[in-house]
Amino acid sequence: MPMLADPSTRYSPFKPTPFPQRSWPDKECKKAPIWLSTDLRDGNQSLANPMTNQQKLRFFRHLVQIGFKEIEVSYPAASDSDFNFCRELLNGGEVPDDVWIQVLTPARADLIKRTFEAVAGLKHVIIHMYNATSCLFREVVFNNNREETVQLAETHTKLVRELAQQYAESHGTNFRFEYSPETFSQTETEYAVEVCEAVKKTWLAGNKSVWADGRNEERIIFNLPATVEISTPNIFADQVERFCSTISEREKCIISLHTHNDRGCAVAAAELGVLAGADRIEGTVLGNGERTGNVDLVTLAMNLYSQGYPPGLDFSDIFSVIDTVVECTGLPIHPRHPYAGELVFTAFSGSHQDAIKKGFEAQTAREKKGNNIWDMPYLPIDPADVGCTYEAVIRVNSQSGKGGIAYIVKSALALDLPRRMQISFYKVVQDRSEQTGKEMTSKDITTAFRQSFHLGGSIYDGRLVLKSFMTRDISTPTSSAPQTPILGPEQDGRPLSRLANLNLSSGHADQSPDRSYHEKDLHNVPKRLTAKILVDGKLREISGEGNGPLSSFLDALHADLGISLSIREYSEHAVGAGSDVKAATYVELIPPEVDPKDKTKGGFWGVGVDADITASGLKALVSAANGYLDGTKLQLEH
Amino acid sequence: MPMLADPSTRYSPFKPTPFPQRSWPDKECKKAPIWLSTDLRDGNQSLANPMTNQQKLRFFRHLVQIGFKEIEVSYPAASDSDFNFCRELLNGGEVPDDVWIQVLTPARADLIKRTFEAVAGLKHVIIHMYNATSCLFREVVFNNNREETVQLAETHTKLVRELAQQYAESHGTNFRFEYSPETFSQTETEYAVEVCEAVKKTWLAGNKSVWADGRNEERIIFNLPATVEISTPNIFADQVERFCSTISEREKCIISLHTHNDRGCAVAAAELGVLAGADRIEGTVLGNGERTGNVDLVTLAMNLYSQGYPPGLDFSDIFSVIDTVVECTGLPIHPRHPYAGELVFTAFSGSHQDAIKKGFEAQTAREKKGNNIWDMPYLPIDPADVGCTYEAVIRVNSQSGKGGIAYIVKSALALDLPRRMQISFYKVVQDRSEQTGKEMTSKDITTAFRQSFHLGGSIYDGRLVLKSFMTRDISTPTSSAPQTPILGPEQDGRPLSRLANLNLSSGHADQSPDRSYHEKDLHNVPKRLTAKILVDGKLREISGEGNGPLSSFLDALHADLGISLSIREYSEHAVGAGSDVKAATYVELIPPEVDPKDKTKGGFWGVGVDADITASGLKALVSAANGYLDGTKLQLEH
Repeated sequence: MPMLADPSTRYSPFKPTPFPQRSWPDKECKKAPIWLSTDLRDGNQSLANPMTNQQKLRFFRHLVQIGFKEIEVSYPAASDSDFNFCRELLNGGEVPDDVWIQVLTPARADLIKRTFEAVAGLKHVIIHMYNATSCLFREVVFNNNREETVQLAETHTKLVRELAQQYAESHGTNFRFEYSPETFSQTETEYAVEVCEAVKKTWLAGNKSVWADGRNEERIIFNLPATVEISTPNIFADQVERFCSTISEREKCIISLHTHNDRGCAVAAAELGVLAGADRIEGTVLGNGERTGNVDLVTLAMNLYSQGYPPGLDFSDIFSVIDTVVECTGLPIHPRHPYAGELVFTAFSGSHQDAIKKGFEAQTAREKKGNNIWDMPYLPIDPADVGCTYEAVIRVNSQSGKGGIAYIVKSALALDLPRRMQISFYKVVQDRSEQTGKEMTSKDITTAFRQSFHLGGSIYDGRLVLKSFMTRDISTPTSSAPQTPILGPEQDGRPLSRLANLNLSSGHADQSPDRSYHEKDLHNVPKRLTAKILVDGKLREISGEGNGPLSSFLDALHADLGISLSIREYSEHAVGAGSDVKAATYVELIPPEVDPKDKTKGGFWGVGVDADITASGLKALVSAANGYLDGTKLQLEH
Repeated sequence: MPMLADPSTRYSPFKPTPFPQRSWPDKECKKAPIWLSTDLRDGNQSLANPMTNQQKLRFFRHLVQIGFKEIEVSYPAASDSDFNFCRELLNGGEVPDDVWIQVLTPARADLIKRTFEAVAGLKHVIIHMYNATSCLFREVVFNNNREETVQLAETHTKLVRELAQQYAESHGTNFRFEYSPETFSQTETEYAVEVCEAVKKTWLAGNKSVWADGRNEERIIFNLPATVEISTPNIFADQVERFCSTISEREKCIISLHTHNDRGCAVAAAELGVLAGADRIEGTVLGNGERTGNVDLVTLAMNLYSQGYPPGLDFSDIFSVIDTVVECTGLPIHPRHPYAGELVFTAFSGSHQDAIKKGFEAQTAREKKGNNIWDMPYLPIDPADVGCTYEAVIRVNSQSGKGGIAYIVKSALALDLPRRMQISFYKVVQDRSEQTGKEMTSKDITTAFRQSFHLGGSIYDGRLVLKSFMTRDISTPTSSAPQTPILGPEQDGRPLSRLANLNLSSGHADQSPDRSYHEKDLHNVPKRLTAKILVDGKLREISGEGNGPLSSFLDALHADLGISLSIREYSEHAVGAGSDVKAATYVELIPPEVDPKDKTKGGFWGVGVDADITASGLKALVSAANGYLDGTKLQLEH
């Protein structure tokens, strides 16, 4: 078997400075940090096909709409298109008054000058200067020692200060300054502090204002990048806390984090870094960026949101966010991306579906009592909060159980199936799903339901179709309350006095006790029922007697068609409300040879829906009888 | 502007139990945990289209090959296909003797029995039983109180023990037992311990062996799932450490973690959980699984690897791993997926490319001195260790700089361009890249290079083509060392004594001092050179005199063709080694009107490669002269 080479001769572990005095693990994050989007800079520079300025503009507008107040838009000295984008923002009047435009520059005089030219005239600008401070970069990339690296930062901070003073006066810009000791997490922390102290001293020492209005910015942003993630996020948090507790004049510093995802922990590093004292986070929407990406601000914001804290960023329409990101970056969003992937609110497995179904019922019950706090198995937030429909939540395949299928039937058809009917229908769905090996869509399932129970239109009709019926009390010789048919729009709007009088069960909790059927009419008077039905396409009239319309109908089926069935289970519930309310009735019928007590065997389920409760019950009987006939070759008597 | 609703009325923060006595932040992870792959169970149950058993078998074989010793293969009681897969593994003899097959079952008697039937006859089996223990699940899903939940776990553990004893004897299986308090991270930790104590007591109390060989398993696996991730990973680590330090007989417990990625921190939670005392991790290869996925074992293993610790899993051929996962799950791997995405080792930006180029040079230098430790800007591991080629590392678009382009030229053509030639060629590439807006592939770049410098075959020829040349010392009247042509295979294998005698510069570090050209031949004797060249397709003989062959050739160009150019910069290096060694020569030529001191303006670069150092130099001159002619309409004298 091939094996990875022993890594111990090739790699050495990161050696953190011990920091036992840490306090961050006892902290909680209760408010949103300042957010900076670097989608248009760090995100853009990592694309095989960088955005056109038109795409950048579209993205910029969306960032503003989401609520970002600080947006890094380019690296103006790196290319003409990056330079021009700043000018286009200015000339197009694209930047709202409360939004700060951030631009990146290395600590090099000519590039800093070019950067100021790019932003000249914008109202609020953050100049973001960086130089790498880790040992590897000092030695291998820049051939500088520690002192030279400090000096490099100091000298160029001075230049930025001078140019900021100059441009504030000449172009009316308010400037702020951000300094990144690049590769911070690989830099000796006390050395990063040393560099930053020098930078801070230089920046704050300027004697003229860098604000157009004459006030002065008295703070500096120190951005601490995990340029490459090289250890566990607790180590990064230790570094951040160490920096925050060592730097002088902490109140004049805005501590910013900029984490990358090389070890898959960018989100954790940012969150623990905030516990460790950081005020601000740089990242991208959905985590695009160099290599494994920048930290994803959707995840960070929604993590906060899920704990009840307003994130200050609006991702309530996650699909439009996805559209913008995908179309501008050309990169896909993974189906399992937190909060945004198409599968992240989906449960396929039976036990998950069952728990979610029960969870929704409990949530609804709590909300009726005024408690809106979301507490739902397997769903950390309400998918609706990011614009997802519940159709995404429960999806059905061969791994799914009855709960999920019942959930879909309830969502799509408003039918809340009794538990044993769920099991019966589950077998139908599982058979179909195992045959194809594919997911069953909501439509597949509702179609299977209609076909199985002959419900929902003539294309689903079975061998028997109820056309009309009449009942009368047997004690009176003539029909006291003739009831004419049922089945169609002519019923709409008819007062449903009988429905209102019945105590409709409103749910089918598994623990509900007796579901056996004892028909008692309102007046408790034996009935005679006459019904017109299609039998194998031919219209017939059948009639029978019983304690109520359902037993009378079963009597008629037996007497006139030779179909011998009795009710083992019965239930009903209301569908809809007000003048649109209907009754849904469920029955399980069994033939005489089946033991009514052994409920694991031999029943046929049916469902009926009608504005009239009697019609609903009769339709359920016809539905179940059709199920019975589907499995037989019974010759119906003519 | 639309805003997310204020979440404070809808969500409440997770309230962790304070655990200030934690010790995990001071710990380091120095060895691999026990790994369990649940790709075929948790991974499979979350797919829109679950795997066929054929796909599961393919995946299983790959998991064995990667080195997994514990593999959860199914939830046998959930479906016939899951049940059958266990039987197929057994009947096919697919399971190596050192691999444990794990199967999941809920705490329900009929399903536990079915589970044992599925694994009967396998040699090493872990029965994994779960029931959810959090308040939400107790109340909403199971309608059980705390005592009933303990009892449920206890009773069914007893059944598992009895069946394990029975099957160990009857079917020769060695059994181990894993118990998951599902939703552990949402469960009061002390209550999770209480449930586990009851389970442990029951499991360890069995009086007959559960091992076929009569020995007894004296340990139990407690798997602590973050079924849904609901807080920051430090909170999870606190819960794990609290569990580990509270549970009795810790030495008899294997503490396992099973994290999900709802908040994007599954990797961090697993890593901090290991610091907190866990021994074992359940996850999937590349992170497939319910909703946002299970923790990704590739990331965890390679994170360990990058610190020099053998992970015990072999991902040295990451592409075959990706193939298996993608083909079996139908899900894509995101381009930014740590260690596996196609972009994760790629640098497009100029400064990154430049640093990597320097880093590679320093790495090579260190390795020559026997220090193999990897220390590279922007690359946490050597991409070659997971089977990536360096072509993936540096890719070029309009955001890229000269460093990356030079890197590609060096990789593809073995040409190490002088710094100013890099800048010159960078402009060519950037122009082309900005015109198309697309990434420049390695092939695009080498083609552009050949076109710009008329190098590499007749299709790249410029207006001048060197066919042959002869030199002689002017002091001797006849040709002392006639040299006949150069340009073709007939040169191969000719001794390169002159090349060996020259002090070839082997690199072009930016800081290298004087690159001006002072031609001194070995014998320091003026030369006369005669060359046959094609001029606009017509063969001509030209000749000139100078201190050496290059100045003689320039003299000839001037005298016979009216092309007046002089050398501003010159360098060369060896290409290849041994009998295949060649010389690569770079020259910058300038016309008389250009100031030789102002190196920002007016030069024309050329490159020549030949086994003969003189031919290499002459070709470089022709290459540069062609570049000059490309920009002029100069009528060449005939």
